[in-house]
Amino acid sequence: MSHKIPGALEHYRLPIDSYMTELFQSKHHELYEMMRHQLGWEEGSLTYPGKYIRPSLMLVSVEGCGGDVDKALPGAAALELLHNFSLIHDDIQDDSVLRRGRPTVWNNWSKSQAINAGDGMYAISRLTLLDLLDKGIPHDRVIAAARFLDETCLALCEGQYNDLLFEDQLTVSLAEYDNMITNKTASVFKCAFEMGAVIAEGSGTRSKALGILGLELGLAYQIVDDILDIWGDSETGKQIGIDLRRGKKSLPIVYGLNNSSSDQYSKLKSIYQSSAENRDVDEIKNILDVMKAKEYCLIEAKNHWNRAKVLLDGIEMPKDSMESILLSGQYLLERMK
Amino acid sequence: MSHKIPGALEHYRLPIDSYMTELFQSKHHELYEMMRHQLGWEEGSLTYPGKYIRPSLMLVSVEGCGGDVDKALPGAAALELLHNFSLIHDDIQDDSVLRRGRPTVWNNWSKSQAINAGDGMYAISRLTLLDLLDKGIPHDRVIAAARFLDETCLALCEGQYNDLLFEDQLTVSLAEYDNMITNKTASVFKCAFEMGAVIAEGSGTRSKALGILGLELGLAYQIVDDILDIWGDSETGKQIGIDLRRGKKSLPIVYGLNNSSSDQYSKLKSIYQSSAENRDVDEIKNILDVMKAKEYCLIEAKNHWNRAKVLLDGIEMPKDSMESILLSGQYLLERMK
Repeated sequence: MSHKIPGALEHYRLPIDSYMTELFQSKHHELYEMMRHQLGWEEGSLTYPGKYIRPSLMLVSVEGCGGDVDKALPGAAALELLHNFSLIHDDIQDDSVLRRGRPTVWNNWSKSQAINAGDGMYAISRLTLLDLLDKGIPHDRVIAAARFLDETCLALCEGQYNDLLFEDQLTVSLAEYDNMITNKTASVFKCAFEMGAVIAEGSGTRSKALGILGLELGLAYQIVDDILDIWGDSETGKQIGIDLRRGKKSLPIVYGLNNSSSDQYSKLKSIYQSSAENRDVDEIKNILDVMKAKEYCLIEAKNHWNRAKVLLDGIEMPKDSMESILLSGQYLLERMK
Repeated sequence: MSHKIPGALEHYRLPIDSYMTELFQSKHHELYEMMRHQLGWEEGSLTYPGKYIRPSLMLVSVEGCGGDVDKALPGAAALELLHNFSLIHDDIQDDSVLRRGRPTVWNNWSKSQAINAGDGMYAISRLTLLDLLDKGIPHDRVIAAARFLDETCLALCEGQYNDLLFEDQLTVSLAEYDNMITNKTASVFKCAFEMGAVIAEGSGTRSKALGILGLELGLAYQIVDDILDIWGDSETGKQIGIDLRRGKKSLPIVYGLNNSSSDQYSKLKSIYQSSAENRDVDEIKNILDVMKAKEYCLIEAKNHWNRAKVLLDGIEMPKDSMESILLSGQYLLERMK
C-alpha cells in the first residue's frame, strides 16, 4: 500500500500528527479505542496510515496568508477529524469491510458502536476547533471557522444523501453528479483552503478566492478517484471496481449512461439489474473503454485543475506557498499514473 | 398517546416551535425531509409530537437567571436538535421501528440514509447555536454554549457506548449503571440548565449549581423511564417491556441481577440466554416484583429529585422560576402514575 504524500505537504505531517495524538492522550473511555483504530493509533503504533491531505492543504493556505502554522493546528486537526468521522459512517453505509487495508471500525466492533464512534469524533472535531482560542486566534475568526466546519458537514450530508440515492438509479445527469461531488468531496477541500485563510487573516477577497480554488481542486480530486476505481492499479493500494460493483454513480459511469448507444445502454442496464455480487464489472469497463470514458474524465479533471490554477494566479501570496499548492494539486492529479 | 407537557413549561412550546419551523423553511434538499419527519412536521402538519422538555427547561433556567427567552431561542432549538439527532441514531442502533407511534426515520428511508440525516441534524444544531450571536448574546457566552453542546454530545456517546455494551452483559454494577445514565441522559438535562444560565448571565456559581440540579433531575427522569418500561401503562403511549426484551440494563434489572437469590439469578440468567424474541418478559417482571425492584427504583428516583430540590433551595432566583422548576420536576417524576 502506498502512503506517499505530496512532498510539498510532507513537513506539515509531523506537527499535525503530534497535535492529534496529544488530543487523545487524556481520553481513556473505551469509546476512544474505536477512534484510535480509525486513526491508526492502536497497539502502541503512532504511525498514521492516512495522508493528512486536507489539513495539510489548510496549513499551506494559512502560511500563504501570512498565518502561523502552530496557531492553526486545532483547525487542521478539526478538519481531519471531520473527514474521519465521515469515513467511519461512510464505511457503515457502504458496507465496506476494509479501509486502508485494515478492518473498518464497524467490522471490528459493530455497526451500532461505529455510528456512535463517528458521532463522538464529530463532537471532538468541534471541541478541538475551539482550541484555536487558546492559540490566540480572535473570537470572530474562531466562530467563522466553526461555521465553516458545520456548513461543510451539512454539505457533506447533502452529497452523501444523493450518493446513496444514486446507487439505485440509472438516470443521473452530469449536473446531478457535479452537484453531488461538490457537496460530498469538494466542500471539504473548499473548507480546508478557506478556513485556513480565515484563521490566518479573517474573511475577505483572498479567503473567498482560496475557497473556490479548493473547490476546483476537490472536484478534480474526486474525478481522479472515480477513474482510479476503474483504471487504477494495485500500486495505489485501492481495490479496483468497488464503486462500480456497488452501483455508485461515478463520473465514468454517468458519462457512459448518458452517452451510450441504445445497444450499449441496454447492456449496461441489464448488468445493473443483476445483484451487486453478480455484477459483471469487466463488461462495464469494456463498454466504458470503447466509449473513451476515461479520456473524457481526465479532461474534466484537468479542466477543474486548470481553473484552480487560473484562480491561484490571481491570488497574492508568497511564491513558496503558491509553489506548494501547485505541487500538491499536480500530485493529487497524477495519482492515476 | 399522551402529549401532555408540564403546565409550567407549556408557554415555551409555541416560541420554540415557531423558531424551529422557521429554521427549516429555507431548507429544500431531500435530506431535510427525513429531519422534518423526525420532528413531526411532514405533510404540512406543524404539530410537533414531542414535548420540548429539554429546551423548555433551558428557557426556565434562562428566565430564572434574568435572561431573555427570545434571545435564548437558538440555544433551546440547538438542544432539541441535538436530542433528536441522537434519537435518530438510537433508533437505528436499537432497531426500533416506531417512535412516538410513527415509523422511525430508518424505517421510512434506510439505515444508511438515517445515519446521514442524524449527522446533518447535528450540524444544524451547531449552526443554530451560533445564531445566538445575531440575538446579541456576547461571543464568550456563545463559545461557552458551543462547548457545552459538544461536551454533552461526547458524554452522550460515552453513555451510549456502555448502554449498547451492557445489552450483552449480565454483570453490570449499580455504579456502572449510574455512570451510563449520567452520560447518556442526565448530561442533556445538565446542559439544558447550565447552558440556559450561561446564555443569560455567563458562567458562575449559579450556572454550576443549576447544572448539578439538572443532572439530578435527569437521573430521576431516566429512572422513571426505566420503571415505565416495565410497570408503565398504555396511557403513557409507550410499549411495555421493550428495554427488557432487548436486554437493556435498566435500573430495575440491574438491581435485580445484583440482589437476587441464587435461584432467582439462575432464572434471570436462563431467560437472558434465550434470544430477544423468545425472552420471557413476564417472568422477569414477576421476579422483579417479588424483589420489590419497583419500590427500590422509586426511592432512588425520589432521592435524586430531593437532592435537586435541596440545590434549588440554595439558588437565588425569582419565585416564579423556582416554582416552574419544582412543577416540572414533579411532573417528570409523576409520569409513572
